[in-house]
Amino acid sequence: MQSVLFDHEREARIGLPEAIFCEGKEPHVLTALLETCARDEAKPTLFTRLAPEFFVGVPEAVRAAYDYHELSRVAFTGCMPRKEKGSVAIVSAGTADGRVTWEAARTLEYLGIEAHVYEDNGVAGLWRLMSNFEKIAVAEVIIVVAGLDAALASVVGGLIGKPLFAVPTSVGYGVAAGGNSALSSMLASCASGIGVLNIDNGYGAACAAARVINLLNKVAE
Amino acid sequence: MQSVLFDHEREARIGLPEAIFCEGKEPHVLTALLETCARDEAKPTLFTRLAPEFFVGVPEAVRAAYDYHELSRVAFTGCMPRKEKGSVAIVSAGTADGRVTWEAARTLEYLGIEAHVYEDNGVAGLWRLMSNFEKIAVAEVIIVVAGLDAALASVVGGLIGKPLFAVPTSVGYGVAAGGNSALSSMLASCASGIGVLNIDNGYGAACAAARVINLLNKVAE
Amino acid sequence: MQSVLFDHEREARIGLPEAIFCEGKEPHVLTALLETCARDEAKPTLFTRLAPEFFVGVPEAVRAAYDYHELSRVAFTGCMPRKEKGSVAIVSAGTADGRVTWEAARTLEYLGIEAHVYEDNGVAGLWRLMSNFEKIAVAEVIIVVAGLDAALASVVGGLIGKPLFAVPTSVGYGVAAGGNSALSSMLASCASGIGVLNIDNGYGAACAAARVINLLNKVAE
Amino acid sequence: MQSVLFDHEREARIGLPEAIFCEGKEPHVLTALLETCARDEAKPTLFTRLAPEFFVGVPEAVRAAYDYHELSRVAFTGCMPRKEKGSVAIVSAGTADGRVTWEAARTLEYLGIEAHVYEDNGVAGLWRLMSNFEKIAVAEVIIVVAGLDAALASVVGGLIGKPLFAVPTSVGYGVAAGGNSALSSMLASCASGIGVLNIDNGYGAACAAARVINLLNKVAE
Amino acid sequence: MQSVLFDHEREARIGLPEAIFCEGKEPHVLTALLETCARDEAKPTLFTRLAPEFFVGVPEAVRAAYDYHELSRVAFTGCMPRKEKGSVAIVSAGTADGRVTWEAARTLEYLGIEAHVYEDNGVAGLWRLMSNFEKIAVAEVIIVVAGLDAALASVVGGLIGKPLFAVPTSVGYGVAAGGNSALSSMLASCASGIGVLNIDNGYGAACAAARVINLLNKVAE
Amino acid sequence: MQSVLFDHEREARIGLPEAIFCEGKEPHVLTALLETCARDEAKPTLFTRLAPEFFVGVPEAVRAAYDYHELSRVAFTGCMPRKEKGSVAIVSAGTADGRVTWEAARTLEYLGIEAHVYEDNGVAGLWRLMSNFEKIAVAEVIIVVAGLDAALASVVGGLIGKPLFAVPTSVGYGVAAGGNSALSSMLASCASGIGVLNIDNGYGAACAAARVINLLNKVAE
Amino acid sequence: MQSVLFDHEREARIGLPEAIFCEGKEPHVLTALLETCARDEAKPTLFTRLAPEFFVGVPEAVRAAYDYHELSRVAFTGCMPRKEKGSVAIVSAGTADGRVTWEAARTLEYLGIEAHVYEDNGVAGLWRLMSNFEKIAVAEVIIVVAGLDAALASVVGGLIGKPLFAVPTSVGYGVAAGGNSALSSMLASCASGIGVLNIDNGYGAACAAARVINLLNKVAE
Amino acid sequence: MQSVLFDHEREARIGLPEAIFCEGKEPHVLTALLETCARDEAKPTLFTRLAPEFFVGVPEAVRAAYDYHELSRVAFTGCMPRKEKGSVAIVSAGTADGRVTWEAARTLEYLGIEAHVYEDNGVAGLWRLMSNFEKIAVAEVIIVVAGLDAALASVVGGLIGKPLFAVPTSVGYGVAAGGNSALSSMLASCASGIGVLNIDNGYGAACAAARVINLLNKVAE
Repeated sequence: MQSVLFDHEREARIGLPEAIFCEGKEPHVLTALLETCARDEAKPTLFTRLAPEFFVGVPEAVRAAYDYHELSRVAFTGCMPRKEKGSVAIVSAGTADGRVTWEAARTLEYLGIEAHVYEDNGVAGLWRLMSNFEKIAVAEVIIVVAGLDAALASVVGGLIGKPLFAVPTSVGYGVAAGGNSALSSMLASCASGIGVLNIDNGYGAACAAARVINLLNKVAE
Repeated sequence: MQSVLFDHEREARIGLPEAIFCEGKEPHVLTALLETCARDEAKPTLFTRLAPEFFVGVPEAVRAAYDYHELSRVAFTGCMPRKEKGSVAIVSAGTADGRVTWEAARTLEYLGIEAHVYEDNGVAGLWRLMSNFEKIAVAEVIIVVAGLDAALASVVGGLIGKPLFAVPTSVGYGVAAGGNSALSSMLASCASGIGVLNIDNGYGAACAAARVINLLNKVAE
Repeated sequence: MQSVLFDHEREARIGLPEAIFCEGKEPHVLTALLETCARDEAKPTLFTRLAPEFFVGVPEAVRAAYDYHELSRVAFTGCMPRKEKGSVAIVSAGTADGRVTWEAARTLEYLGIEAHVYEDNGVAGLWRLMSNFEKIAVAEVIIVVAGLDAALASVVGGLIGKPLFAVPTSVGYGVAAGGNSALSSMLASCASGIGVLNIDNGYGAACAAARVINLLNKVAE
Repeated sequence: MQSVLFDHEREARIGLPEAIFCEGKEPHVLTALLETCARDEAKPTLFTRLAPEFFVGVPEAVRAAYDYHELSRVAFTGCMPRKEKGSVAIVSAGTADGRVTWEAARTLEYLGIEAHVYEDNGVAGLWRLMSNFEKIAVAEVIIVVAGLDAALASVVGGLIGKPLFAVPTSVGYGVAAGGNSALSSMLASCASGIGVLNIDNGYGAACAAARVINLLNKVAE
Repeated sequence: MQSVLFDHEREARIGLPEAIFCEGKEPHVLTALLETCARDEAKPTLFTRLAPEFFVGVPEAVRAAYDYHELSRVAFTGCMPRKEKGSVAIVSAGTADGRVTWEAARTLEYLGIEAHVYEDNGVAGLWRLMSNFEKIAVAEVIIVVAGLDAALASVVGGLIGKPLFAVPTSVGYGVAAGGNSALSSMLASCASGIGVLNIDNGYGAACAAARVINLLNKVAE
Repeated sequence: MQSVLFDHEREARIGLPEAIFCEGKEPHVLTALLETCARDEAKPTLFTRLAPEFFVGVPEAVRAAYDYHELSRVAFTGCMPRKEKGSVAIVSAGTADGRVTWEAARTLEYLGIEAHVYEDNGVAGLWRLMSNFEKIAVAEVIIVVAGLDAALASVVGGLIGKPLFAVPTSVGYGVAAGGNSALSSMLASCASGIGVLNIDNGYGAACAAARVINLLNKVAE
Repeated sequence: MQSVLFDHEREARIGLPEAIFCEGKEPHVLTALLETCARDEAKPTLFTRLAPEFFVGVPEAVRAAYDYHELSRVAFTGCMPRKEKGSVAIVSAGTADGRVTWEAARTLEYLGIEAHVYEDNGVAGLWRLMSNFEKIAVAEVIIVVAGLDAALASVVGGLIGKPLFAVPTSVGYGVAAGGNSALSSMLASCASGIGVLNIDNGYGAACAAARVINLLNKVAE
Repeated sequence: MQSVLFDHEREARIGLPEAIFCEGKEPHVLTALLETCARDEAKPTLFTRLAPEFFVGVPEAVRAAYDYHELSRVAFTGCMPRKEKGSVAIVSAGTADGRVTWEAARTLEYLGIEAHVYEDNGVAGLWRLMSNFEKIAVAEVIIVVAGLDAALASVVGGLIGKPLFAVPTSVGYGVAAGGNSALSSMLASCASGIGVLNIDNGYGAACAAARVINLLNKVAE
């Protein structure tokens, strides 16, 4: 049985990353993982939610093996081969969504997928979205990142027919705190066919986009 | 003490309606109220949430005294004096919001306030809002009625600086059922200064608008 | 501005359906819509959540114009042109998820997209999924429909790297009632890159799949 | 299209502030924003939720450019032109609501709108409200700030017919923690026509009031 | 052990009723209980939540043994001995709270405790409470019954120092539906020392008041 | 009007404390309040939720004026006159409920009411309650303090007919975290006539008990 | 792979039932299932949540093949072989929990496991539990069924060290409605080692007990 | 009465531990408890949730008396006598569940029960579970520890018929934060007869397993 499962798994592994989610891991476990993966650069690995406060305390030699990005808290030792086809537009409502926006962007970079980030398109100022619109609409997959009312997902979903994944963020206070207002707004969107991810899950949105981009590339073979 | 309070109350009563909320009232109590108010047409009264199934069973003579509107479930015996200044634009996302939209419209009619209804402006088709935009923007007060993601409130709130009241509706299923997704979306709106009403409270939105229109008329005296 | 938006909208319309959500619509409004669309068979229209109890009372002549499916409550007057590339596997946990499963299947049929349904794959009997596995894995897009613990989404998501959309269903009682246990389970899935839809939103899952299939066909042009 | 939108936006901008919400922004981003805005004093800017712990560490020269108020955590470089007509009464239940109360007051000051603060009017001691009553009732717009049971909003709303906006606060513990008891109490108020803001959103209440005051001034022109 | 417990139980039984909660009981079980208790009139029994639709179908002979009150849905075969000391004021916000208000009143009647009902004291019209105030304040125990914002509990609790029990009602829609807004408002009341009962639990409020009145009578012995 | 209200208020003040809730108050405001009240020892004042970390930093001279109790975080400058009649039994489930248990006890001490504390009576070891039972049952009023399942309230409420107030505590983790499991358990208690307070509100329970004890003393006059 | 899984499954099937959950199944599907299983009496099948209103309409010949129990809504065509060792005590708080209590009892009967039901042991009258105590304590496994505060689970769990499964019921109103107060109370129980089932899941509790009884019998072989 | 209860309690005590839950206990109380129990090594005691930060500050001499395990935060002075029969398999989804997994393992060690831990069996990689499967299936009782979607519980429950207890963990973010997604997933599991514990309650799962193992040993006597 294992061989059967292993085959399918290997197929999946071609497209989706081996990622290590760092939040909540014991410090000594995390350090050991970083050291192990640093030694084996041939096999790229992705670390998400790797806190700057922690990373700064990791031995210099280990840190040097990583491409680390503070805002997104994403580190990797190397990237997967560049995909020939397809690009992803990551559209966010505000700079406060930056952590999640860039977690998606960095994960796509690691996965070898072209991605472009368009920040600060909150619908309270609709003209900002409009000025980026043509560049966004040309991408094969769209990721929308937004907190609060998450109205951006519905507006983009109503204007563009491409595969669209939406990530609610935990930005905000009061009823918006923790991201539930954005989550329910995206799930209940009046625009059809939006795939929603867990709150703050920029990594997951990148994987969802990668599932589509990988399919495009496989079909094109 | 009562005289002081009474004075203020009387002042308030000039603008805000004596309304009877019919839902949950015992049938015989409701019939008695309808009969009493029908006799005293000089003093107009507003009935909200008056179910068609019930109203159709009220004696013909009593029913004849009322201006009843089935979709909104609003009845009144007469209207308050027409306000000279100010009008209200009621903007809804879809026809499914009709009950609440027209409860607001009918309440404003009863209050003697000019109101115009613009339905079916959901942001999944942004051009529908745009084609109504100039007429909406000219009103003194805006009421937005929307369920699901309630993104319409944020889009309108970002485009127009007039006093704006938003009513979430209980339209929808799953996370939208009962109206909580729309409510939290409106409260967390990225557009500033939107006053939110309880779910399905079209009557309350009309009263909130009336507080502003009444002020305009008083100041103009 | 409108022309720009209109162009994009038209582009979107090529792929995504004009659908009429029937739940909560006033009966006379619904009947009028069914009559109008029946007359204009050249332009196919989709009706979702159209209750059998209601449809049976629609005039025979109107009903005859529709392809109606009772379990899914979906009706349409005709289908959109068949897409050349891509198929969708719809995998459900149990027969109790049938309404949602078939709403997705029927919507895909209307959209001209090949779809295959695999029911009764709940993980409490893992061998059922395994016996369907090779047929499922060959599709370009996977839709998982499940209620209760929704564990099926995670198991499928861990085995197959294709674009995957998950629909929680409101099947069940106690903590499962209304579908929130399935929804949160899917959003928190330990498998990466799953796009989640609102509870019971089979129509939305079909649209999400269509966004991918349409992209495949456009790229292949 | 942009020019049309831009016009409306500019119109809105006359009345509503360009505000920078500081909570959750990266420290170096925030410092850069403070420095930029300090240089261009001609264009007043509003910073909300600017923590004293952070502000004290900003370079002296930058700090000097700002009018900062510790309790409200509001800073601005200058104010907008004084409105000729209209004043706002801000009525709070207790001193524990001070942060929100003064955020509203400071935002109105920035917007050039006359505002008066009346604190400590909790209904558990009704005579305190009564002793302030005549001064409150004379204002054109009322803002009520309250946590816990938020009963103050209903009492004021029942006594005064002016436009009224209510802000729930997150003050309290147990069921009151986070402000949800106050929020639902205000939304369900037995007084009609109260526009409710998000929890702790003093800034939003000021904007809602400004929408009314700006209308008054425009009508009077 | 049992005898010890039995003694205390008997002591308790002197004051608190043997009540049968009828909601959810199988019809044939309920009919049997009504028949049994009707035969033994010497031992008074209380039935709560006894639906009029059901009671009307009970055999005439059985029904005749009961003092039944439709609005409160309370029936009893006889009352407990009249307490010499103490009375209870039951103060409600609106007539829509009638079911709960009268469940409390009827339970107190059964328990032999003097009770007076004051309806329609909602704080949106504060003068109504004030006109009843002196009569209310003279009672030994106060019960406040209110839905929506439940502000009445706080206002009464701030004016009167007597033992006060508050019952939230499920009256209302939107955030008020089911009674949670009223419940949290009462628990978070800014007035101190209010004992809160479950939503719609008029029977429980009467029992809580009875615990105090019984104590008063025992102490006076 | 004010004089009328003032009279009732004064009457209330005789029994219920002027209490200052310290949590969330700005440090300099709190220090000023402590200094003011320290000077006027003739008028006793109660401070609740006064954190030890803060109190230790208050000037020695001011601290000396207070009777401070660290676990309960309650301080007062003096007590109210001793009530002649009545005592209160405070029964808690575990030592982890100590903060709330002793907040109630200390508030009663301040109010001049005799109180006895019985800790560690959780129903998982029923014999512990039984060994304290006779002493508890003799008190005029019972306060039950419990977290988790709060089963203690129901067991005590079923054994003793005296006025009973129940305080849920926020002790625990998982579903018990924050106290909601205990709160709903107490509100839904199968024992009748229990008045429930907000989570962790030991002060409120003492006030509720004081309302009863004060009534007893007044009636006895 | 399938053979491996199949083996384990077959092993499991020896102990746990093939059950058909009837709620939400389409009527014609349900009738077909009942007919099929009626024909094959050699292979006993269990139907749960089979509504009396539906069952009465099933053809007489089919109905005759079933042992149907109205209160529990459980039907089966025959029972599994009697287990030699072990019995289960099902202890409920009130008769209103009857549906769930008897669903557990009937499922155990079908599974060939000895079970005894003890109803009406609510802790508000502790002596009722005590009079059944010795008979309950002698069983190998205990199932506690309770709604409202579910205090019974904690009391039994504190007195008896046998495997104990607790089923919350949806009995009650207000905060108890739907069973969440009972569920959280059982999960947070101060007695250790209680396994909790979903709300109203009497069938599941029987299966949990069967897992233990089957183990006992296997070990004894 | 006490002697009866005491007997049963003593019987229970044989199997279930005297455990001290350390979280939330005052430091000086905790230190005193550790000192007392260290002196009396003859009577083993279990401390759970004993923070490493705290334990490191306990006097060396006291610490030396304890077997302390940092990850699980469990300490004990000695173990209970080894049970002759039965072993427990503790199966976890990921290393992030380590705290809870090892709290269960350590509690079983203290209770004298053989236990084996199998970590990292998340269903996103089904082959990991399969490679451990035969060793797991041989145990008498299974404990599943999982966060997020908790799908592991359903998969194991569908494959193995032994008594199974499931512990949701608070691992995760967004909808998974706090453990509610895992909790509801386990309660709604499509596998039958799983007893669910409170979130993060590894100790409780060990006690539930011990109730079964103790029964096995008693029956075997």
